[in-house]
Amino acid sequence: MQKNAYLCMTKASIIGASGYSGAELLRLLAARSDVRVERLLAGTSAGKRVDELYPEFAGRVDLSFESLDAQNFDGTDVAFVCLPSGEAMQVVPQLLHSVGRVIDLSGDFRLPCAQDYENYYPFKHVAPHLLGTAVYGLPELNKLSIATAQLTANPGCYPTGVILALLPALKNDAISPRGIVINSLSGTSGAGRTASFEMSFTEVHDNVRAYKVGNHQHLPEIQSVLGRATGKDISVSFVPHLVPMNRGIYTTIHADIVAELTENDLYEMYIQYYEQAPFVRIRKQIPQVKDVVRTNYCDIGLTLEKRTNRLIVISVIDNLVKGAAGQAVQNMNIMFGLPEQCGLL
Amino acid sequence: MQKNAYLCMTKASIIGASGYSGAELLRLLAARSDVRVERLLAGTSAGKRVDELYPEFAGRVDLSFESLDAQNFDGTDVAFVCLPSGEAMQVVPQLLHSVGRVIDLSGDFRLPCAQDYENYYPFKHVAPHLLGTAVYGLPELNKLSIATAQLTANPGCYPTGVILALLPALKNDAISPRGIVINSLSGTSGAGRTASFEMSFTEVHDNVRAYKVGNHQHLPEIQSVLGRATGKDISVSFVPHLVPMNRGIYTTIHADIVAELTENDLYEMYIQYYEQAPFVRIRKQIPQVKDVVRTNYCDIGLTLEKRTNRLIVISVIDNLVKGAAGQAVQNMNIMFGLPEQCGLL
Amino acid sequence: MQKNAYLCMTKASIIGASGYSGAELLRLLAARSDVRVERLLAGTSAGKRVDELYPEFAGRVDLSFESLDAQNFDGTDVAFVCLPSGEAMQVVPQLLHSVGRVIDLSGDFRLPCAQDYENYYPFKHVAPHLLGTAVYGLPELNKLSIATAQLTANPGCYPTGVILALLPALKNDAISPRGIVINSLSGTSGAGRTASFEMSFTEVHDNVRAYKVGNHQHLPEIQSVLGRATGKDISVSFVPHLVPMNRGIYTTIHADIVAELTENDLYEMYIQYYEQAPFVRIRKQIPQVKDVVRTNYCDIGLTLEKRTNRLIVISVIDNLVKGAAGQAVQNMNIMFGLPEQCGLL
Amino acid sequence: MQKNAYLCMTKASIIGASGYSGAELLRLLAARSDVRVERLLAGTSAGKRVDELYPEFAGRVDLSFESLDAQNFDGTDVAFVCLPSGEAMQVVPQLLHSVGRVIDLSGDFRLPCAQDYENYYPFKHVAPHLLGTAVYGLPELNKLSIATAQLTANPGCYPTGVILALLPALKNDAISPRGIVINSLSGTSGAGRTASFEMSFTEVHDNVRAYKVGNHQHLPEIQSVLGRATGKDISVSFVPHLVPMNRGIYTTIHADIVAELTENDLYEMYIQYYEQAPFVRIRKQIPQVKDVVRTNYCDIGLTLEKRTNRLIVISVIDNLVKGAAGQAVQNMNIMFGLPEQCGLL
Repeated sequence: MQKNAYLCMTKASIIGASGYSGAELLRLLAARSDVRVERLLAGTSAGKRVDELYPEFAGRVDLSFESLDAQNFDGTDVAFVCLPSGEAMQVVPQLLHSVGRVIDLSGDFRLPCAQDYENYYPFKHVAPHLLGTAVYGLPELNKLSIATAQLTANPGCYPTGVILALLPALKNDAISPRGIVINSLSGTSGAGRTASFEMSFTEVHDNVRAYKVGNHQHLPEIQSVLGRATGKDISVSFVPHLVPMNRGIYTTIHADIVAELTENDLYEMYIQYYEQAPFVRIRKQIPQVKDVVRTNYCDIGLTLEKRTNRLIVISVIDNLVKGAAGQAVQNMNIMFGLPEQCGLL
Repeated sequence: MQKNAYLCMTKASIIGASGYSGAELLRLLAARSDVRVERLLAGTSAGKRVDELYPEFAGRVDLSFESLDAQNFDGTDVAFVCLPSGEAMQVVPQLLHSVGRVIDLSGDFRLPCAQDYENYYPFKHVAPHLLGTAVYGLPELNKLSIATAQLTANPGCYPTGVILALLPALKNDAISPRGIVINSLSGTSGAGRTASFEMSFTEVHDNVRAYKVGNHQHLPEIQSVLGRATGKDISVSFVPHLVPMNRGIYTTIHADIVAELTENDLYEMYIQYYEQAPFVRIRKQIPQVKDVVRTNYCDIGLTLEKRTNRLIVISVIDNLVKGAAGQAVQNMNIMFGLPEQCGLL
Repeated sequence: MQKNAYLCMTKASIIGASGYSGAELLRLLAARSDVRVERLLAGTSAGKRVDELYPEFAGRVDLSFESLDAQNFDGTDVAFVCLPSGEAMQVVPQLLHSVGRVIDLSGDFRLPCAQDYENYYPFKHVAPHLLGTAVYGLPELNKLSIATAQLTANPGCYPTGVILALLPALKNDAISPRGIVINSLSGTSGAGRTASFEMSFTEVHDNVRAYKVGNHQHLPEIQSVLGRATGKDISVSFVPHLVPMNRGIYTTIHADIVAELTENDLYEMYIQYYEQAPFVRIRKQIPQVKDVVRTNYCDIGLTLEKRTNRLIVISVIDNLVKGAAGQAVQNMNIMFGLPEQCGLL
Repeated sequence: MQKNAYLCMTKASIIGASGYSGAELLRLLAARSDVRVERLLAGTSAGKRVDELYPEFAGRVDLSFESLDAQNFDGTDVAFVCLPSGEAMQVVPQLLHSVGRVIDLSGDFRLPCAQDYENYYPFKHVAPHLLGTAVYGLPELNKLSIATAQLTANPGCYPTGVILALLPALKNDAISPRGIVINSLSGTSGAGRTASFEMSFTEVHDNVRAYKVGNHQHLPEIQSVLGRATGKDISVSFVPHLVPMNRGIYTTIHADIVAELTENDLYEMYIQYYEQAPFVRIRKQIPQVKDVVRTNYCDIGLTLEKRTNRLIVISVIDNLVKGAAGQAVQNMNIMFGLPEQCGLL
């Protein structure tokens, strides 16, 4: 490799690299010739080779996990934090000093005020001063701010699908900001790489269950982001469900139409809104999970139910890609002036 | 077997016995000592032994499928019709003559007026004179009428879960009859025993998709049954989804609360409404599909979302049991004066 | 309930009732009118109602789990031990005194000599004096001994399918006892009701893996039972695999033919051998897991591969029924003089 | 695009592009900047856009399917034939004239003599003169011949995993060529993109079944390729099983050891044999399907069972990648002098 090529490279480290999001990030970054993965930090897996945990990387990625205590990030341009919510906020302030630019995949910097954390997360925020400076990393909404952000708060998986599905209609005053009903169906990888009875195969297979009905931690994220983006007082109901598949979030939303519109008007409104968004596809067919699995796309389908005067909008993403690692890479591309789609097609 | 015992037996025949509902019915009836399965009629499978199609019955059920042309039903007390919608109405009038009492599992006699069929089903009704006399076979709603019915229209799988979830709240004026949002998730056996690319394993596995958004044929059934039962002008949105499991329907409903109620009030209201219903369980936990699979139960969970003043009610059934064959047996028990739970626990 | 009826009842207690085998046993016993479940003992679930762990039992089974320390078994006729291997042997000696008749579903009393436990299980046996008196509870092999047994060692799930598939051919000198190759595919419920990363949905779904290649603890059970039953020096290779389904064990066996036989001769040989065995079905079709799921059947299919002069025999069982709880009930029936099939059809 | 760049491009057409192998090929080729997909031919899908059948390609691949009657292949450097066996042989002779270089993914040119087709395939061969000139496209065996081949017969999915697992041991006289036992477990995508009752979700899910026991059409392919490669008289038993997953073939092989070897000797033998093979990984862990899904790797694990003196070798591939489209791309790379791994990492 030439010295020049090396200088052009973006050097990335991943903190909390042993989980599913961390591994997906490694999968995406390892395939690129313009990015180099410098360091992988992990907790209990520290000291192990990457291919011990993820044999798929054997022969392709020659790295080992280091301890989370590692402090030296010389040469790292960007730190991806893939730690659980509540742990990320412990390390992000230090990383902002030692690395400079941080993309945090946890929920720790997505909400605007510390109080929300006490209501929806099981902890008190330890770095509330950063909540005002963190940029919510949804490129379709905040691309300009992301470009110059020091700390990008990568959106939650459910909020990504929900917000992308609602933005055009809300911004264009097509639907009421009140009384929106959101039902989401998630695959299991969103629950992370852990041992738990509830997530065991025998319990999840051939089964469906709703959970955290009315009090999921992504609810304030959805409401606050949509509220700030539209200037409206947003009120949604949100019920997440666990379904037996590995990847994917399928979101079906009902909202009351408040404008004179045809289904085609809505379709055109969405097409136009996302004209510059390479990863949102407005579809004429009803989307399926399989259309977007292992891609960074969010596919959106629209139905205008005349009988009830409601918009039924369906969005689908891969929770580990557009809902986590892929969107983080998209954010990195924007932060470092690289083409937005680089490494994501 | 003693002659007396034989005289006490209910003798049943199944028309369209080779599909999944027919086989489930056979499973339930073959285990009983007070019911005898007389004849099994089927289309392309006529002439085959039952265990050729369903090896699970080998050594237990010694019957063969006969042609659908068979006319002689001497000795049959009740005919279960498991033909597809549109075919059932061709044979039911004749069966009412030759057998006397008919339980039809198709959609052909569930709607009150023939016009609805032209709007939501791909056919014109050929026996509209029977629509007024057929009893909608939801025992929790119509037990007395079922007891004396000649023609019982066994409810659709989606409507069973939906109607049971809404009846108590609507009848008690707890929720608005307008603006109800229903999202249902169904396993694949509901699509029947057929060859289709869309239902192939490779397409359904690791996937979710909504279908017939806003125009499913169970929509008029839901609205008309709830309307007649409550005297209200019901308006619902209904989105069915296909999820990768064999059995089960998971229904999540959002409705606007219109009374001063606590969550516990709602819980007590539902408990009381179903006091006499042996197959409805009001649950304090969020129900899961696995709680009811291969049972005739409908489990219901309730959440009062104070922030939005909405009732979120979740119901779950096994589509082949409470959603089809089990409910048909429950109806047969009622029609023949047998204990309602007989053969279903 | 009349006093007489109560006197005729077999009263059963389950020790280790909160796991999947215990729950399956409860499912089978609770449906019977001639058996009463007296007590359910469990470890960490002690104090909880059965339907807290298994909501399917709500409204049907009104029992709570008691502590494993419970000592009083007055009125219990038979104790089913569903504890993990290594724990069962701690309680069985005491239960033989306090209850009298014990059916142990663990591996602790299946092997003939204590040394085998040190080689294949992670413990030293604490009750080796019982190894000689325990009866191996495979009814198709040992029905007479089971009828009078005090301690019945319920067979392992893999050995049940393997031994039933091989007995007729070995006993009739049709195949060589050496060089037998066994590949088994198991669903996940066999791994028990536990939290483990390896058994999490995300890891098991859309995946297959072999495990314990050449050193599974069921290997000595297979070899010793077949050896004692046939008087031959048995040598098998055994590779278990985990496949993404909840229930079922599919076993494919290759063995060298050593007699002049047609495929039909083999078929007749198996039919005849199992003439008195109500739960073994010799099939002309290739068996599938779904043919036996939630039944106590073992289905067996035979192919004579002329080109290689090998017998390919396939057997399939439900690991929780014929491979555990169902077979335990079958053994109880035999031990208490009840019809062998009672409660199992 | 510069003219020079275009000249350097390999231009490919796919005949039978609408099936799963064709779509996988398109997925692999569309991501490359050095290959251009010229034409996609398909049967019933002719006239449709690619993203109508495969919405995942929306916004990425702007092509439509043309009729299979299309004759003009000017500018196409290589034709991939993804038609079913029996149809491919109808078009390959003509394609050898019009295109020059053909990679056939069907079974039509894998066997050395026409008679084998009459025994194992349901047709008589119509182009037997090409059987002698077709090169069996397993790069790990025939790289030099593939480089100059006009017609490359891409290996079957099962044979790929089987042959790679056995070659080193057979070539080094470590195992007996007789009495080899092969059990393979396949996902469903191998059955193709079709409507069939047997492959419907409800039938495949939560189920396992063996099929074509002893007479699968891949058996003569395995025996003839291994026979020619080693000069030995190979005799194998082969039982394929269908398991509920979309992609992957898991193969477990038992063979008798005939040399003095330790497990480490075997490991080194395999490592050395595949030293130059970038897509074969010899593993110390037992491989899992998930380690290779959506990759072109074949992972191999080895166990020496001392007790029986047998080698147990396990191989795993993705049937659509290394078992079909990926291997076809690997062959194209070799045929056109491109780096073997290009577009496959």
